[in-house]
Amino acid sequence: MKPPPNIAWIGDAATGHLRLLDQTRLPAEETYLECTTVQDVWDAIKRLSVRGAPAIAIAAAYGVVIAAQDGPEAVPAACDHLASARPTAVNVFGALDRLRASQPHTPDALLAEAVAIHDEDRAACLAIGEHGVRFIEALSEDRRGVLTHCNAGALATGGVGTATAPMYLAQQRGLNFNVFADETRPLLQGSRLTAFELAAAGIDTTLICDDMAAHVMQRGLVGLVITGADRIARNGDTANKIGTYNLAVLAKHHGIPFLIAAPTTTFDLDCPSGADIPIEQRDAVEITNGFGKPTAPTHAQLPDLGTYNPAFDVTPAELITAIITDRGVVDPVDEPTIARRLA
Amino acid sequence: MKPPPNIAWIGDAATGHLRLLDQTRLPAEETYLECTTVQDVWDAIKRLSVRGAPAIAIAAAYGVVIAAQDGPEAVPAACDHLASARPTAVNVFGALDRLRASQPHTPDALLAEAVAIHDEDRAACLAIGEHGVRFIEALSEDRRGVLTHCNAGALATGGVGTATAPMYLAQQRGLNFNVFADETRPLLQGSRLTAFELAAAGIDTTLICDDMAAHVMQRGLVGLVITGADRIARNGDTANKIGTYNLAVLAKHHGIPFLIAAPTTTFDLDCPSGADIPIEQRDAVEITNGFGKPTAPTHAQLPDLGTYNPAFDVTPAELITAIITDRGVVDPVDEPTIARRLA
Repeated sequence: MKPPPNIAWIGDAATGHLRLLDQTRLPAEETYLECTTVQDVWDAIKRLSVRGAPAIAIAAAYGVVIAAQDGPEAVPAACDHLASARPTAVNVFGALDRLRASQPHTPDALLAEAVAIHDEDRAACLAIGEHGVRFIEALSEDRRGVLTHCNAGALATGGVGTATAPMYLAQQRGLNFNVFADETRPLLQGSRLTAFELAAAGIDTTLICDDMAAHVMQRGLVGLVITGADRIARNGDTANKIGTYNLAVLAKHHGIPFLIAAPTTTFDLDCPSGADIPIEQRDAVEITNGFGKPTAPTHAQLPDLGTYNPAFDVTPAELITAIITDRGVVDPVDEPTIARRLA
Repeated sequence: MKPPPNIAWIGDAATGHLRLLDQTRLPAEETYLECTTVQDVWDAIKRLSVRGAPAIAIAAAYGVVIAAQDGPEAVPAACDHLASARPTAVNVFGALDRLRASQPHTPDALLAEAVAIHDEDRAACLAIGEHGVRFIEALSEDRRGVLTHCNAGALATGGVGTATAPMYLAQQRGLNFNVFADETRPLLQGSRLTAFELAAAGIDTTLICDDMAAHVMQRGLVGLVITGADRIARNGDTANKIGTYNLAVLAKHHGIPFLIAAPTTTFDLDCPSGADIPIEQRDAVEITNGFGKPTAPTHAQLPDLGTYNPAFDVTPAELITAIITDRGVVDPVDEPTIARRLA
């Protein structure tokens, strides 16, 4: 079985709509959301039915086409609204800026722009794979494990993913490697999505809990860590799914390269450092009742029990060995090198 | 609400039985297992209805009393069987050795020995609190957070816990501090048990997912990490719940003291180093289907998806700032200091 397509525009520009795979139901169910209003798209982004910085940008772009079906005057407000669904990933802001700037604000013109964004992301994923596969080629014979966190895979993008792009290409080329997928609490994008898509593609994949990553590294099973990114500041500090910073510290302790894979649309050159990236805080219920039954004392039992649920953390540039982009590898990770690579 | 008593002998020695709180059902349900056979006790240990190295030892000791109700000839086999339920925690082996050596093998005599083990553990917890509370007293004004993993609390022992003992005492003394409890995947002893017992006791407690610990440290919210232990080797290498080693690496990176709290019965002086401690591997289903619905692709969907589920990891002595025992603090953590402290 293969994961189904995550984002598709159905029908023509003037009357069509956005079909999103509901990723909150994976892997148990393959369910689609038929988004016919801007609010439908906003809700899907907010609840993580579509997630991953590149995929959010593509979905939001199609959402603006839906707005234009009500006339061009609906477009600016739709852009503002879609930008408000989640604060951390930056790609969506860039995509919405492109649609705002695109003229005329007709469904046909905006759909062409949204499709262009979608196609460019597909191409960026392939380019990340080409630039990143050498890190898998370079793994030593006795340490072929690649560890990843969350889902920076096909389900998070318009193509073959970011962190996963080098893995898919390595598989095509017949390289010998295996993947450890962190399950990624609280929402389990690693077990539900990454383990799903990689194992479905025939890649040797082992699912672990997040607190096992250090032990797997200590046992000498990991040669490389690759994750995606939601926003990369001008100096290389990188916001990504909570738990990424944890892996960067562990990788440093064990002498393992720690890589970020992201399209250039994930860089925010207006953002000086990680301290300037807003970190989304999400509902406690994701931690306390995320699996259909309570996994912690309920509020009724213990009203004073606190929870803390940041969706992202920031990894400082000095812990990042290199950033794999569609325009090549940023190494070392610092402001001048980023500026040159993005120029 | 308060967590109920976890281990109790009900009735007299000759006809009584062991009542165990079924910790797998907490915090949603307060259910008791009435163990009337040795196999009942073995099953309860195996499935983690009773867990925590000291509590396992106490439960197994009472299990031997049940065996003796069938005559003294049943005692040696019961000791062997109860020792086989879980391989990593060492306290149970010491407790069973005491019952084997105790004479006569009558229910009355063995119950007296089991009660002694229970009472001694209760006293050890209090002593750990006395020796450990100074670390909470010494927290700086701007960093009052104590992070813990799994449950080394009252529910894991015969008393006020090991890692939690200094916290309970600090609370009694009116010290200003707060606790971060890792939820501790896969079995969530942190959210189900530690957050439960600490918040129920009125201690300021915040529940986080395991992959948030690094971020919380990065934000300067943690001044101290304290966990329990399942077995401490002669050189100080410590086996504890999977994820403990992760915290030790993170604590080192952030310059935060990393403490182990354990009674002297958790030391295994016959075990030279962590490499000699057997690590229990548990069923994949704990990761893939631990909450009543699948959290990963099922075997039917993707038969080739691997899982890895070690129940414990080993933290090398050099990452442990100090070990708090009932006989005082081991600092530095090395073989001579341990030998002196246990002499």
